[in-house]
Amino acid sequence: MKMEHGGDMAGASQRSGIPEERLLDFSVNVTPLGIPETIRKAMEDSLDRAGMYPDLSKKRLREAIGKKHHIPASWVCCGNGASDLIFRLVFALKPEKALLLAPTFVEYASALRCVSCRIDHYRLSHEDFDVREDILEKITRSTDLVILCNPNNPTGRLIPKNLMEAVGKRCADVGAKLLVDECFLEFTKEPERVSMEDRLERYPGMVLLKSFTKMFGIAGLRLGYMLCSDERLCQAADRFGCDWNVNCVAEAAGLAALKADDHVREVVACVAREREYLMNALGALGIQTVRGKANYLLFRIPGEDRLYEKLLEKGIMIRTCDNYEGLGKDYYRIGVRTHEENVRLVACLGGLIKTQEKMNDPAKAGKKEDDR
Amino acid sequence: MKMEHGGDMAGASQRSGIPEERLLDFSVNVTPLGIPETIRKAMEDSLDRAGMYPDLSKKRLREAIGKKHHIPASWVCCGNGASDLIFRLVFALKPEKALLLAPTFVEYASALRCVSCRIDHYRLSHEDFDVREDILEKITRSTDLVILCNPNNPTGRLIPKNLMEAVGKRCADVGAKLLVDECFLEFTKEPERVSMEDRLERYPGMVLLKSFTKMFGIAGLRLGYMLCSDERLCQAADRFGCDWNVNCVAEAAGLAALKADDHVREVVACVAREREYLMNALGALGIQTVRGKANYLLFRIPGEDRLYEKLLEKGIMIRTCDNYEGLGKDYYRIGVRTHEENVRLVACLGGLIKTQEKMNDPAKAGKKEDDR
Repeated sequence: MKMEHGGDMAGASQRSGIPEERLLDFSVNVTPLGIPETIRKAMEDSLDRAGMYPDLSKKRLREAIGKKHHIPASWVCCGNGASDLIFRLVFALKPEKALLLAPTFVEYASALRCVSCRIDHYRLSHEDFDVREDILEKITRSTDLVILCNPNNPTGRLIPKNLMEAVGKRCADVGAKLLVDECFLEFTKEPERVSMEDRLERYPGMVLLKSFTKMFGIAGLRLGYMLCSDERLCQAADRFGCDWNVNCVAEAAGLAALKADDHVREVVACVAREREYLMNALGALGIQTVRGKANYLLFRIPGEDRLYEKLLEKGIMIRTCDNYEGLGKDYYRIGVRTHEENVRLVACLGGLIKTQEKMNDPAKAGKKEDDR
Repeated sequence: MKMEHGGDMAGASQRSGIPEERLLDFSVNVTPLGIPETIRKAMEDSLDRAGMYPDLSKKRLREAIGKKHHIPASWVCCGNGASDLIFRLVFALKPEKALLLAPTFVEYASALRCVSCRIDHYRLSHEDFDVREDILEKITRSTDLVILCNPNNPTGRLIPKNLMEAVGKRCADVGAKLLVDECFLEFTKEPERVSMEDRLERYPGMVLLKSFTKMFGIAGLRLGYMLCSDERLCQAADRFGCDWNVNCVAEAAGLAALKADDHVREVVACVAREREYLMNALGALGIQTVRGKANYLLFRIPGEDRLYEKLLEKGIMIRTCDNYEGLGKDYYRIGVRTHEENVRLVACLGGLIKTQEKMNDPAKAGKKEDDR
């Protein structure tokens, strides 16, 4: 099963014959708690303005975002989802050589290929998928752009602040731009201890990427933003793509989301609890899980490359990982959902594993034991 | 007054002190009849799906569009407004030299500048703003891309089919791609007599651009599409920008719009009637109007470069044209709106012209007469 991203409900429905509304989607990383009522209301109201072009300058939204982060609106650029900004930045910067983690979010490479950029990888050890100090050696004078996802997607592992600081300094020293994708950072326990937000002024060549879609459950509307203290870079990102890129419903949802702190707290608590539940439950089934800190988990079942299909038959979608550079066909990613849904996934996984064990030749299974 | 596009309600409101809801916007070219009820309903229903990622393949929408135009879905590529597709195409093609009309829609040049493309202009005579056969001489072996807007924006003038055919042939001969922007063609009387839709197969290097936003009044949602029989070019346009570029509300509105033929007929009839009214009324005021065929009119008041400000004081926004290559500061564009609104504009214009005449020194006016 090859897929570009999670969330392909239409495709999964077509393949499985199960109607979309009956599919349980663990393949995406959005809040398990749905869209807060205040945001839903703002979305509905915004439809009255659908006849007018969206605000070209995105002033209101940029000002509200700036206020939230205690920075000027001129340091904010909004996009049709965070992905839009990845492409805009890449088109604006036209890097010749970029450094990416492997594995990491696939859109970075998709964007970099559009400008024929050479991609160098910092390959994460499959032991713990952690970024270590030796990444600094990969950042040289020939590096134009470094992209780090923190927490990384699909591993959920965090890069500690002191290492981020060292990367920021190193990039500034060699004249490389640094894109830090913090789209999932808000789902972690203490985002402020990891975020590079307080280093925006120190590193004008650093861009932080943030998203509304995951935390507030508005993936269908598309809204992300970037922060950078180099105003020319913000303006360039705005220019290297179409105008009016943020639609009026997304704008309204974003303005309402900036006031939804209670929702954020609830989601973070729920995700922490349920992530722990999933880690333990999968561990009990003998599944190797990466100890992620975000609202998703990466796991591996050695040699099992048909888990997507098997779970889809039962109406559950998960994310295959074979289009991530550096991950094999037996890696999978699941989003953390509500307890009831997580229990259903664990039960299905447990059932599949039991069936598999029964099907295996007992003699062969015994031999495997001996081999250890 | 410098502006990038029409429709800057927020900016106009700030400058004039008049609340947005009290501004009458003649600066944009959208349907005077608003959003049809069926589309509004589809938009509302779509909010229930805002929590899910939009369909990555845009299959449903592309199939419905293909069916409307009697072409395969693989010839269709959808965008976050037609502007999104202009940028994607330009990023994908990376033209070194392009031919544009002057004046024409400003986004073409904005996109071309992103890839450092050299822009050659076919300058339209201010007599009638018509494209003539001599445009063929401007299309040479060094031309990578020709962009024609039909009807042209901001003039509303049509390029006849036989000339379009000659351009198509010429582009094919010299190996240039041809982008024909037909976003406003549906507003004209007999679009099928002008459209290059029936030449898609003959010219695989030709791309047609279409929009939902103007005819169906959904400018705030963003939805446009391109048609091209070279499937690789459609795929490239999809790839040279972010995924999920069409939000779920726009998708739903588009699907409903494809069934709203009655609305199209009503709008075309209304626009034809009201365009004629405006042409005559402006003519009676002594204003030189370009005989456009679309839902907007270009006019000039020689020497008058402050009409935007004067009308804004009265709560009316029009489109200044000084950022159009080849137009002076005394050119203006207005959208065709409902009869009541058009009457209000004409009355305001009449009042301003009368005031101006009174203010002019009668002696000086006499001298001017003598100078002729």
